[in-house]
Amino acid sequence: MELKEIGEFGFIERFAPEFKTLLSKNVMGIGDDCAILPMNENSDLLVTTDMLIEEIHFLRDKITPWQLGYKSVAVNLSDIAAMGGTPLGTFLSIAIPPGISVEYLDEFMNGYHAISDNYETPLYGGDTTRSVKHLAINVCAIGKCPKGEARLRRNAKTGDLICVTGNLGDSAGGLQSMLSQLKTSEDIEYLLQRHHLPEPQMKAGQTLLGFSGVHAMLDISDGIASDLVHILKASKKSAHINLEKLPLSDPLKRVCELQNWSPEELASGGGEDYELLFTLAPEQLNDLQKAFSSRVGKPFYVIGEIENGEPVIQWYKNGQKVAFSKAGFNHFQE
Amino acid sequence: MELKEIGEFGFIERFAPEFKTLLSKNVMGIGDDCAILPMNENSDLLVTTDMLIEEIHFLRDKITPWQLGYKSVAVNLSDIAAMGGTPLGTFLSIAIPPGISVEYLDEFMNGYHAISDNYETPLYGGDTTRSVKHLAINVCAIGKCPKGEARLRRNAKTGDLICVTGNLGDSAGGLQSMLSQLKTSEDIEYLLQRHHLPEPQMKAGQTLLGFSGVHAMLDISDGIASDLVHILKASKKSAHINLEKLPLSDPLKRVCELQNWSPEELASGGGEDYELLFTLAPEQLNDLQKAFSSRVGKPFYVIGEIENGEPVIQWYKNGQKVAFSKAGFNHFQE
Repeated sequence: MELKEIGEFGFIERFAPEFKTLLSKNVMGIGDDCAILPMNENSDLLVTTDMLIEEIHFLRDKITPWQLGYKSVAVNLSDIAAMGGTPLGTFLSIAIPPGISVEYLDEFMNGYHAISDNYETPLYGGDTTRSVKHLAINVCAIGKCPKGEARLRRNAKTGDLICVTGNLGDSAGGLQSMLSQLKTSEDIEYLLQRHHLPEPQMKAGQTLLGFSGVHAMLDISDGIASDLVHILKASKKSAHINLEKLPLSDPLKRVCELQNWSPEELASGGGEDYELLFTLAPEQLNDLQKAFSSRVGKPFYVIGEIENGEPVIQWYKNGQKVAFSKAGFNHFQE
Repeated sequence: MELKEIGEFGFIERFAPEFKTLLSKNVMGIGDDCAILPMNENSDLLVTTDMLIEEIHFLRDKITPWQLGYKSVAVNLSDIAAMGGTPLGTFLSIAIPPGISVEYLDEFMNGYHAISDNYETPLYGGDTTRSVKHLAINVCAIGKCPKGEARLRRNAKTGDLICVTGNLGDSAGGLQSMLSQLKTSEDIEYLLQRHHLPEPQMKAGQTLLGFSGVHAMLDISDGIASDLVHILKASKKSAHINLEKLPLSDPLKRVCELQNWSPEELASGGGEDYELLFTLAPEQLNDLQKAFSSRVGKPFYVIGEIENGEPVIQWYKNGQKVAFSKAGFNHFQE
């Protein structure tokens, strides 16, 4: 059988149940942004890992080594943020093909160091090796979270508001601009920056952790059309999304208008925004909005609601139900 | 500058100092088999990670997927063993090229599950993605160790005996048999088994942890000619190795005689034995040998002694000093 017939998640579902028998209680294994393990009286340990493969996740002539080093850490710290955690450190495995210079690697490590410094997250170790042709990078990040407080995907409640911490679609707009070889402009530079240098929403995640009404949370890596379904399946709920509520940046709106692209498709089906998506008991909306603005320095956005029903998203635009087939990026089905 | 000019360790030395400023006290970062972090009152947290890249670390037609799954975990658990730790779990990142079937992956996961089961070590999570051409596997393992007890590379003392937990050179003999396309035999099958299915010396490491005279420890992944030097550099010591004391299996001796290979070269310069090397205060030799035999079910072997001096190995054979240039495998210098 070809892997593309079952996809990435189909593969995981084949072996995950067999490993569950090895798990002890109070442990969260496969199935959330991070694994959660008991650490000490006050904290749980969070662990996450992400692989970036040349020509699959990045093109070496389209992203600078500094950006690549930064992004390799950012996508992992984003998973720590999605639990409401605090990062403790990272581990870097890197497989280096012939033709990559020491200067390229120095720049890569400079970007890696910059984000490590920003989030006070040391590099604790790793593995350095050769590869035949493609650069392969794996970062494993560990973090901690107050005991029992990490926000899982499975806790969404009927009636919860569905919220996101920032603009959606910028990264997909940047990617599409790059692949379409659009002539550069200030707007396109902004989108490319959002694509190459995602910022983990660490302070947002930690602020959300302080509110008991924040029930389920994850980071948006594949696009809400795909990521929200993880919450719906884990929580056995349905959702209603109002497309006109998706927060869009002005640069994205302008580039989409010029290029005749659908900003709603990019915002819902495109990945790598690395904003957080969370579900919230509506009675805490006002208090959280105030606390969030004051601590994070920006608002969050309500884009829909959790409902009873099948784990699918009902899409609405200005009150009208719409069909919306653009699925999130599946690594095995181009 | 080409990477091969400075090698893997030269690259690490370029960035490691800059990251040291981010480390807090009571933390061991880059430079040992595992990183060590504070976990709770009783235990330290151990973390290690290893990458296996197709055509660099394995050939897909020479190792079965079951063996590859087993080995991917084994090489990481070996690092936990080298600290005297107990494994807690693993994280698997896998980048899968077109043409790898679901059946291949099922077998890979069966091997991964078998060793996870043997060492009661759950798979907690990971990342599954595509690659263009080569299979790339990264495993990150976490473990624990009684607080402050992990055995570091930097603690070897002058006068310590240098010991290894089992036969050396079998894995290199298996690799050389495979690359030389030798006709199979019972002996060669034994060597291939040792190459493809290394066993982490977990019980050995845990037993050694109970003896205060065990000062420095690591696992033999690149060969003692290279690995022992890590201990010498970290401890600022020299060493004297008696080549005739290197423990050799009967199959290795017989294959070497038939092929006119030097078993001492394979045993000192060849990698991937995944036995432990440790240094031991001589007054504990008898007690440890008894405890080790009774708990691990095999003896360990004294192969030399730690001395004052430059961090190099002095090689001796039957009391005569010999030149021995065969260096351990350096990933960037073939």
